[in-house]
Amino acid sequence: MASGRMEFHADTIMQHANFSFVLPNDVEMEEVRDKRYYQRPAGSLILLHGLTGTDTDWLFGGVAQQVAIQYNLAVFMPTTGNSFYLDKGYRGGNFASFVGEELPDYIRKVFGYCESRETTIIGGLSMGGFGALHTALAFPDRFSSCIALSSALALYEIAETGRRSKSVMPQEMVRDVFGDPKKILDSEINPEVLYQKCKARKKPVPRIYMAIGTEDSLLESNRRFRDYLEGEKAEYCYEEGPGKHDWFFWNQYLDRGLSWALAKDRK
Amino acid sequence: MASGRMEFHADTIMQHANFSFVLPNDVEMEEVRDKRYYQRPAGSLILLHGLTGTDTDWLFGGVAQQVAIQYNLAVFMPTTGNSFYLDKGYRGGNFASFVGEELPDYIRKVFGYCESRETTIIGGLSMGGFGALHTALAFPDRFSSCIALSSALALYEIAETGRRSKSVMPQEMVRDVFGDPKKILDSEINPEVLYQKCKARKKPVPRIYMAIGTEDSLLESNRRFRDYLEGEKAEYCYEEGPGKHDWFFWNQYLDRGLSWALAKDRK
Amino acid sequence: MASGRMEFHADTIMQHANFSFVLPNDVEMEEVRDKRYYQRPAGSLILLHGLTGTDTDWLFGGVAQQVAIQYNLAVFMPTTGNSFYLDKGYRGGNFASFVGEELPDYIRKVFGYCESRETTIIGGLSMGGFGALHTALAFPDRFSSCIALSSALALYEIAETGRRSKSVMPQEMVRDVFGDPKKILDSEINPEVLYQKCKARKKPVPRIYMAIGTEDSLLESNRRFRDYLEGEKAEYCYEEGPGKHDWFFWNQYLDRGLSWALAKDRK
Amino acid sequence: MASGRMEFHADTIMQHANFSFVLPNDVEMEEVRDKRYYQRPAGSLILLHGLTGTDTDWLFGGVAQQVAIQYNLAVFMPTTGNSFYLDKGYRGGNFASFVGEELPDYIRKVFGYCESRETTIIGGLSMGGFGALHTALAFPDRFSSCIALSSALALYEIAETGRRSKSVMPQEMVRDVFGDPKKILDSEINPEVLYQKCKARKKPVPRIYMAIGTEDSLLESNRRFRDYLEGEKAEYCYEEGPGKHDWFFWNQYLDRGLSWALAKDRK
Repeated sequence: MASGRMEFHADTIMQHANFSFVLPNDVEMEEVRDKRYYQRPAGSLILLHGLTGTDTDWLFGGVAQQVAIQYNLAVFMPTTGNSFYLDKGYRGGNFASFVGEELPDYIRKVFGYCESRETTIIGGLSMGGFGALHTALAFPDRFSSCIALSSALALYEIAETGRRSKSVMPQEMVRDVFGDPKKILDSEINPEVLYQKCKARKKPVPRIYMAIGTEDSLLESNRRFRDYLEGEKAEYCYEEGPGKHDWFFWNQYLDRGLSWALAKDRK
Repeated sequence: MASGRMEFHADTIMQHANFSFVLPNDVEMEEVRDKRYYQRPAGSLILLHGLTGTDTDWLFGGVAQQVAIQYNLAVFMPTTGNSFYLDKGYRGGNFASFVGEELPDYIRKVFGYCESRETTIIGGLSMGGFGALHTALAFPDRFSSCIALSSALALYEIAETGRRSKSVMPQEMVRDVFGDPKKILDSEINPEVLYQKCKARKKPVPRIYMAIGTEDSLLESNRRFRDYLEGEKAEYCYEEGPGKHDWFFWNQYLDRGLSWALAKDRK
Repeated sequence: MASGRMEFHADTIMQHANFSFVLPNDVEMEEVRDKRYYQRPAGSLILLHGLTGTDTDWLFGGVAQQVAIQYNLAVFMPTTGNSFYLDKGYRGGNFASFVGEELPDYIRKVFGYCESRETTIIGGLSMGGFGALHTALAFPDRFSSCIALSSALALYEIAETGRRSKSVMPQEMVRDVFGDPKKILDSEINPEVLYQKCKARKKPVPRIYMAIGTEDSLLESNRRFRDYLEGEKAEYCYEEGPGKHDWFFWNQYLDRGLSWALAKDRK
Repeated sequence: MASGRMEFHADTIMQHANFSFVLPNDVEMEEVRDKRYYQRPAGSLILLHGLTGTDTDWLFGGVAQQVAIQYNLAVFMPTTGNSFYLDKGYRGGNFASFVGEELPDYIRKVFGYCESRETTIIGGLSMGGFGALHTALAFPDRFSSCIALSSALALYEIAETGRRSKSVMPQEMVRDVFGDPKKILDSEINPEVLYQKCKARKKPVPRIYMAIGTEDSLLESNRRFRDYLEGEKAEYCYEEGPGKHDWFFWNQYLDRGLSWALAKDRK
């Protein structure tokens, strides 16, 4: 299957940004379970890695190539360090703007994918699950759906305790990434704040798919955000299932999430 | 600078074809000597490696990135083994069709480059110099120019002696690649035969740039083809200069060749 | 997890040979099911792709990274075209010597892996399943075991009919790869011939694991070779199971095969 | 030539660290100008990129492959973002420890290179020139020499003005990377502070090669550090020459610097 890795100068993060990609343009139809996905043009999926991760994670451990084939999706997987996909507020440190704007713009320029909101999805696992939620709500004109798996919705705990008790992140890194803990909940780090902004605009809000394993230490924070979405009557799907914080869970629920998101698109 | 490596299923050679690329879409203008090249859309250049070579040769030893920047060219460098870029005549063995048709078609499909004859050049060194000549003349509707550096125009010697005296190619490989020596000169392996076909079509023939070092054992065969072009009153430029079969020569004359070919385009 | 891709000049095939690798030297122990594999030094596994395949197949579609983690194996995946991993008999065309000798020698020189027969396994799927069998029996001092999945034991059919009826391989390619059909069964293309040579040496013969799906068109040829091994009282394990010629089958049985092969090593 | 790209989990920076490499283990001797370098085992060179740079810079724009061939050096080129190769003081942010300890340790573990101080050199350009100086002096037991090209010895200006007047770095990034400007000169960011520590240890101090173009805005800060080295009677070589902040300069002076450093080693 068509695949590769490339890099380009990204202005928002002042770095040569690396990304891997899989393109469903040489797929053999006999491999495809549901050929209806090939009756429309290929869609686009940006997939985000977790803390300490890299652009090949979704290829080597995850099923990026499988979902590209099965759902006729061009999949793009950037490497973005441990930024939590947040903007620091200055050129060179704006990772939200990178994944939400500069990367999809560049993909459209080079490959022609990510060409419309309706055909573009963002997903991720753990830190990347948070990133998918956050980016979709920060750039609601760019993404029709997000797939947030085992999301590191750490902000609640950080706001309350100033730290992440079950994470490998040192305290100083928490501070570097999230800034003053007292300000988090009212800032645009908080997906709830972004959700309110979306609603106020009276434009479509991205559909949200969330999944979390019942043995995952992030379970409570995910339930908390589900409750928020429920209270808001948001268009969302929340799933819990037996599982931990690993590829068995992410691969299974990426498939379920895409199935849900793309079924919505078909209507 | 934007660069990467990718692969896709190529039908003509029944393989996942690998290619590296450099894209002039994030160039800083202060690096560019002659900014006029950025007043037109980027051109396309396919660059072929030599015997035993690979897609990174023109990047690590050669100046692919430099010419991409200076001439505003998207450069694509395939790996194609020791095929001499010839068609074997069956699906799975058609390397001429691969570099002359399937690869540029795929590049156009994925990146939008190689979109017209006028903006597409093919070049190469040694076996790839032969390949550039051969491919341009075999697919004259695809390429406006070719840059043939230190070209392994081995066919003359093979036709006469059945072997390549100064090459690392074993005799059996010569036979596998070129077939019956007695038939070479009359076959479409021979660029002269292809040139006659081009002329007969009464359509534009690609412009040919050739360069060869005076210390290169391929000097005589290059002069022979130059004489042929001169006899045909072809549109060509032939340069000899001090030099051997190495990157010092190729990097200098790739630049000269592109300068010549693109000046023609500008008129 | 530690992974990469590299290339080097391989003399046997006169090409820059590409291979991907995964190294179990930065694995987190909590991911590992059976930690006993980490009480010995890491083993080595060479994994071969199928027809039209490439070095990333076992990473993107297959579970190379998973088996590297679970069994503490350094995994090396070369790209070798459609050679069937056979020697053509001249330098530049010797693919058996490449995967059986030059590649493991180079891996030992660069990484220190493949350092002994006892710790080195070769596996593959389809054409690569044949390649694993063939290479292990051609170089029995190099490999303790082979894992042959859905092996393209096409030689029986080719010898009898001169063609491969259910394959995408054109007739000319069959001839280029296998030579004269009448000579195949008596030549060193035939694993049975190699097996006899192994026995005659009175040195250890590699253990053979074979698996084939009951819906695979290669079923009969695999049963035929199993019967041969049974007749020879070889040390082998043969498994059939529901399945086709796809990654669902290969990923499941690579795991089973490694489990079998490594259990033998432990004794 | 043998080359590749790999990644591994680096603890100091809590990321999958990417690096490219070139290994002089398949070089053809006819390419080598001075064969004496092949009468000793291959040396090791870590090469650092500049601000906004990446691991392929020294391969695509620079002559990493050429110096690997000519000086028989294994060259390793990491990607490390815009960290200035400094330690932030917590796990996940320690880039000096990464390039000075974890990376060479990992290279030794995987490849056997960087196995002794005497055979290991660190070099770089611009931010990477500063990084080479800083790392060599911070880890003087690891490196015999450093090659610091057009070094971004920005600390003097930052200490005095709190900013970098001629740099693309936003003010906030300067603060993120260098911390409180008032404390820089007395901290271990300052190579002079590290030099004093080296001297106090009474162990060998790495030899220092510096080069800077006379048209480079960093000229004054480089002269200032040269004056410091002169005052200290350090073992160093400082060269100025016509040139700007570009690959023409870096490629020429990397060669000169290696020539100087390796001549010293030979004595």
